[in-house]
Amino acid sequence: MSHKQSMSHKQFKSDGNIVAQYLFGLARSNPGLTVIKHDRVIFRTASAPDSGNAPKVTLVSGGGSGHEPTHAGFVGEGALDAAAAGAIFASPSTKQIFSALKAVESPKGTLIIVKNYTGDIIHFGLAAERAKAAGMNIELVAVGDDVSVGKSKGSLVGRRGLGATALVHKIAGAAASHGLDLSEVAKVAQSVVDNSVTINASLDHCSVPGHKSENILGEDEYEIGMGIHNESGTQKSSPLPSIPELVAQLLPLLLGVDEDRSYVKFDSKDDVVLMVNNMGGMSNLELGYATEVISEKLIEKYHIIPKRTITGAFVTALNGPGFGITLLNASKAGSHIIQYFDYPTTASGWNQTYHAAEDWKVLADGKVPTAPSIETVKNKKSSGVTADYDTFAKILLAGIARINEVEPKVTWYDTIAGDGDCGTTLVSGGKALTEAIENHSLRLDDAARGIEDVAHIVEDSMGGTSGGLYSIYLSALAKGVDDSGDKKLTVETFKEASQFALEALYKYTRARPGYRTLIDALQPFVETLNAGKGPRAAAQAAIEGAEKTRKMDALVGRASYVAKEELSKLDGEGGLPDPGAIGLAALLDGLVGAAGY
Amino acid sequence: MSHKQSMSHKQFKSDGNIVAQYLFGLARSNPGLTVIKHDRVIFRTASAPDSGNAPKVTLVSGGGSGHEPTHAGFVGEGALDAAAAGAIFASPSTKQIFSALKAVESPKGTLIIVKNYTGDIIHFGLAAERAKAAGMNIELVAVGDDVSVGKSKGSLVGRRGLGATALVHKIAGAAASHGLDLSEVAKVAQSVVDNSVTINASLDHCSVPGHKSENILGEDEYEIGMGIHNESGTQKSSPLPSIPELVAQLLPLLLGVDEDRSYVKFDSKDDVVLMVNNMGGMSNLELGYATEVISEKLIEKYHIIPKRTITGAFVTALNGPGFGITLLNASKAGSHIIQYFDYPTTASGWNQTYHAAEDWKVLADGKVPTAPSIETVKNKKSSGVTADYDTFAKILLAGIARINEVEPKVTWYDTIAGDGDCGTTLVSGGKALTEAIENHSLRLDDAARGIEDVAHIVEDSMGGTSGGLYSIYLSALAKGVDDSGDKKLTVETFKEASQFALEALYKYTRARPGYRTLIDALQPFVETLNAGKGPRAAAQAAIEGAEKTRKMDALVGRASYVAKEELSKLDGEGGLPDPGAIGLAALLDGLVGAAGY
Repeated sequence: MSHKQSMSHKQFKSDGNIVAQYLFGLARSNPGLTVIKHDRVIFRTASAPDSGNAPKVTLVSGGGSGHEPTHAGFVGEGALDAAAAGAIFASPSTKQIFSALKAVESPKGTLIIVKNYTGDIIHFGLAAERAKAAGMNIELVAVGDDVSVGKSKGSLVGRRGLGATALVHKIAGAAASHGLDLSEVAKVAQSVVDNSVTINASLDHCSVPGHKSENILGEDEYEIGMGIHNESGTQKSSPLPSIPELVAQLLPLLLGVDEDRSYVKFDSKDDVVLMVNNMGGMSNLELGYATEVISEKLIEKYHIIPKRTITGAFVTALNGPGFGITLLNASKAGSHIIQYFDYPTTASGWNQTYHAAEDWKVLADGKVPTAPSIETVKNKKSSGVTADYDTFAKILLAGIARINEVEPKVTWYDTIAGDGDCGTTLVSGGKALTEAIENHSLRLDDAARGIEDVAHIVEDSMGGTSGGLYSIYLSALAKGVDDSGDKKLTVETFKEASQFALEALYKYTRARPGYRTLIDALQPFVETLNAGKGPRAAAQAAIEGAEKTRKMDALVGRASYVAKEELSKLDGEGGLPDPGAIGLAALLDGLVGAAGY
Repeated sequence: MSHKQSMSHKQFKSDGNIVAQYLFGLARSNPGLTVIKHDRVIFRTASAPDSGNAPKVTLVSGGGSGHEPTHAGFVGEGALDAAAAGAIFASPSTKQIFSALKAVESPKGTLIIVKNYTGDIIHFGLAAERAKAAGMNIELVAVGDDVSVGKSKGSLVGRRGLGATALVHKIAGAAASHGLDLSEVAKVAQSVVDNSVTINASLDHCSVPGHKSENILGEDEYEIGMGIHNESGTQKSSPLPSIPELVAQLLPLLLGVDEDRSYVKFDSKDDVVLMVNNMGGMSNLELGYATEVISEKLIEKYHIIPKRTITGAFVTALNGPGFGITLLNASKAGSHIIQYFDYPTTASGWNQTYHAAEDWKVLADGKVPTAPSIETVKNKKSSGVTADYDTFAKILLAGIARINEVEPKVTWYDTIAGDGDCGTTLVSGGKALTEAIENHSLRLDDAARGIEDVAHIVEDSMGGTSGGLYSIYLSALAKGVDDSGDKKLTVETFKEASQFALEALYKYTRARPGYRTLIDALQPFVETLNAGKGPRAAAQAAIEGAEKTRKMDALVGRASYVAKEELSKLDGEGGLPDPGAIGLAALLDGLVGAAGY
């Protein structure tokens, strides 16, 4: 074993004694469960012999803790009736298991489901024999689905129990709910075991609460066949793989390309269930990604289209940073397996909501339903508010020219107070707009559509928060112009529309006049325009508003991080103004001037 | 920032470009969803305008990826209708969002739900304005529930969106399913926001696929108020806390003990929803434990009994090793909030299965239903197979004496081949049994119950695999004796019972004669007894069987790890025997001898 690098895993301080409280936490979020605290048993309240419900075969499982939701999280209608929880990674005692058996004792008998690990087999076996000695009707099925150890090497201890455990809980639970007899339910469970294969792989060991983490893997090593108790796997490799690279290594092991690991045969005509199981520490994003990678590979390379796919954290190794792939050949396991898979359960560990067999048919050809991308977000309908193409273009170009003029100063201000890109961002927008005008790609003969097109250019070319704010304002302005009912774009059209757009903008920013932002220029402009004082006065109000920011304290946005001493550097010209406000005021002044006011 | 220690987080190799495939993976495990690949949008197929379903208000959300199941995992009946997924931790573009809006356009209108982060607000705001400009009926609600920043400091940017986002998706989704109008659904959503508080805490940052992890926390530091994009929290502390210690720090922040963070008032009469949210990297075991710790503290210290509790990974920060607590004051949020919470959904992100309001009542007093521990697993009914108390005791004591005699040799053998405790384990069992005999606590006047009691003592005192195997055999033996129908214990009684017990044992171990285990002594004993050759011959067969293990290769159990060279050390006495077989043979010989055969 290599100890190339000690890797620290941060953990909550713990004495590891958290299992009983876990069961209580589970019951708090799942009404219908009862806890036997001392025995660390949880059971379906409705499965108790004195519940008055019609008897059915009951299912009892359990094992060491650290694999949650397995087993306690599978207690619910349509799955387990009781679970006994051992200490972390340690089998529950016979007494605990017996307590679970008694809690859900049924005249129809009880099936014990246990993962194939020596300690679990001994304790559950002993409890089973005790229960039989006490006159109870008991069957036991051991789950072994791991393919990491080949048949020749593993024949004497059998396969370890991994992800298929959750499938057995679910499917046998549904069989019991369908009223099957004990021997039949046991047969279903055994059949799922016999027709399931699982392989786990992990980048690292998990952290065990109450124990200092030790790593036996090197910094760039990962392990295939890793168990769920930090047991070593069968193959260490490096460097760390991508998920597609890892999947390409795992699938041949599952599909018995190596004859020694050929536990279950899969044919492309078989109904196959795919389970992708988070060992606990993978992000849901990567797990979903892995699910797709596995699905695509199964379909393309092995011509297996999973009939059912389930993905989530089912049989975990605490926070193990890896995943397992389980395949169940449902066709070989029996004719009702898919029906039992689909049957609803209240067990919270089974994270899949109820989908009828009918719903699944859309995926039967191995293709996820897709829809085409939208081609454009532009409104194609003419607004009816006409504009003069050349005048509109001239005005825009004049505004852009002013932006270019004022850029060095804006950049300088922003270098002191921000990240220095305020001026160049405005210039970028202007440049893109100039090109669009030159290419005649803007609908400038329609006032609303023209503004809308400008909004798109501004968003794409400026980006960031300021591009977004400009674009929101312009989009709302376009809507205001559109809604004006005017036939032709005039100053009057702008009055109401500019106010409407300001209100729209205020829904998305908390900035208001006095906060040292471009609002200090925009609001006076809109206000003055709406006071009927004309565009010239409005532009002047914008300039004055921008100048006022020289005396303001920083409040929001980038400027809020600037210390007062920094600002004092510009005392000579009256203080540092907000560069965004200065830029917008210049733009508005340029636009208004070119419009001839 | 301290950089006390660089902590390595192992990651799958990735360019971070995994979002589109994640959406496909989600759709593969959830029939009923459609993906727009290029726009990274996922929507409910049944919510499409051309689906033919009766129109309802549709809900659209989205944001940066890395928070799964939020948002895509909340697309489903009774929750969201569409989600747009940005790159990891980056807002989707306006075009993506607009694509989602168009995919589920409804004559009843669309509610946009967005987390309160500048980039998201700008892009969703812009998409909203564009959609309105294009004639769509749109409302937007921004979720801000973080209490890590106090009112005075955070008033200008508002609270960040955290765990409450999932509650808004679920509750507003149910409201839309109930047929409410757009303004009403928006009101419900806003009301959930206004009455929710969340605080996150984490031991570390998360690993971002495609980015090298950097840690700004020291090895023993944790952070309160940590955001879901690795943003710094408001308070760094050390050393690492226990979960109860951390919860004790978090609850006062949530409950507004500090007036500056008093965003929502909670009264013990209010209906409160508790959500415990895994930031992605905590084990389910610890999350459930945290849920219980939080519940107990809320009830005991703050007299708040949550009316509903939900726990799981809802709004994650990839694999962030921390959790968040969200409290929603449902009473203040409106009269139907709990009803909407309970309403079923097919969204896989909402991990809670359907429970009716009635089901929840069992938890209304703040106490989880409990049942008493079982007092004993012993069968109290007399078996009817009598035994002579003193003879039975004498036989047992003689067997124990032989164990004590043979122990040094057994220990020596086991020191070479195993962990050296085989002999002392047997002696421990003998010692406990001797004490029980001296205390007259064994029912030795009843053959079956006497053996059963011995089985219990053996299990408790020996422990481990061998104690378990002994106890399984003895428990099954007791059942065999019980089922014999005999009135008195004789050699004949043992014949069938010993065979029955061996078969029971074989269900739990794959060991068979020849595998170098105690079976090499037991099976010949049972076989010889059943061949009618009498107990003496049977004991002799056990001794011979044990001796034969000297020549066997290691196959199962501990002995399988011993190299052949090690075994050769005992060539002088014929090779190393299996210590367990030697011990059992001695025991059987002692028992049989004392019985007078």
